[in-house]
Amino acid sequence: MERLEKQIQFLLELDRLKEIKRQTLIASGIRQENDAEHSWSLALMCLMFQEYANTPIDVLRAMEMVLVHDVVEIDAGDTYAYDDTGNATKAEREQKAANRIFSILPKDQALYFRNLWEEFETGETNEAKYAMTMDKVQPLLLNDKTDGQMWRSHQVTKSQIMKRNAHTGDGAEALWQYALQKIKENIQKGNIKDE
Amino acid sequence: MERLEKQIQFLLELDRLKEIKRQTLIASGIRQENDAEHSWSLALMCLMFQEYANTPIDVLRAMEMVLVHDVVEIDAGDTYAYDDTGNATKAEREQKAANRIFSILPKDQALYFRNLWEEFETGETNEAKYAMTMDKVQPLLLNDKTDGQMWRSHQVTKSQIMKRNAHTGDGAEALWQYALQKIKENIQKGNIKDE
Repeated sequence: MERLEKQIQFLLELDRLKEIKRQTLIASGIRQENDAEHSWSLALMCLMFQEYANTPIDVLRAMEMVLVHDVVEIDAGDTYAYDDTGNATKAEREQKAANRIFSILPKDQALYFRNLWEEFETGETNEAKYAMTMDKVQPLLLNDKTDGQMWRSHQVTKSQIMKRNAHTGDGAEALWQYALQKIKENIQKGNIKDE
Repeated sequence: MERLEKQIQFLLELDRLKEIKRQTLIASGIRQENDAEHSWSLALMCLMFQEYANTPIDVLRAMEMVLVHDVVEIDAGDTYAYDDTGNATKAEREQKAANRIFSILPKDQALYFRNLWEEFETGETNEAKYAMTMDKVQPLLLNDKTDGQMWRSHQVTKSQIMKRNAHTGDGAEALWQYALQKIKENIQKGNIKDE
């Protein structure tokens, strides 16, 4: 029973992702999205959009990655994409968090989940690239759906977005092209600043 | 592009699951859980607990089912497990909802997702049974973690819980035994009424 106890403790620890707010509004625009909701959306996208993957992928592996890709934010918090100061210390804070959180699990499973997280972070496998495309495209879709409110309030610029999304097409080019079209529309509307 | 437009419309429609409240508190106890968060927890459980499945299962299929199992609640709402009046009309309301929501997708994918939902609802395959175990055990774990607050406020009885969970062990007996122990502890604490 000790093994199952540890697994359930991990599950309940991860429940805290339901309280980590992101800098993205949910589609209705009434409030910020949290990490658990975001992770669910990405898993659904992994399933729905596999026909657009640039290479054949193992969908299960991609889904497993997105389910836990934000786990470290329980300790390290959500660092906004365009917060340069926060991003400078992000990697170190996240490694510490990973050490603590994954070690709640029995050893074999701690290693399995840690590897999932590392694979996503490293972004080299086809599955990690595909998962990353979902992770980047999803907030773009929500920002567009909510009239660019978050882009405007953070005064986000076109060059910031393009820099951040330099590799977004690597997993599923068609999805990035769709999102890019939305970005262009939001530049025209003045929701994204074009310096 | 019309195909992708439909798929994205479906994704944004499903975003409304983030606003459907359940009669369960999140682990910290500060607020009710929503359907999107619940679905993420179940997908994570499908991954973590496969070693406890009563039979070999296709984990991906089980995960796919839990990701969309609550979709119909966008129209039909969450019917509380112990609301007899609500449950009398639940099936009809949910079929209507399924007709509307899945038909947003391109036909082939609408059929795929509808089949996923039907498979879960019917509960006959090993994967559906396993997914159902997760769906039933997860709120029990959260209720226990939050000191049975929701059981008390709804004055839930032992016989109601046992009736509702008559088949919870069918997918993963060890998980049901763990939850059953928690139920017994909450009966002793007076959180669950023992008539």
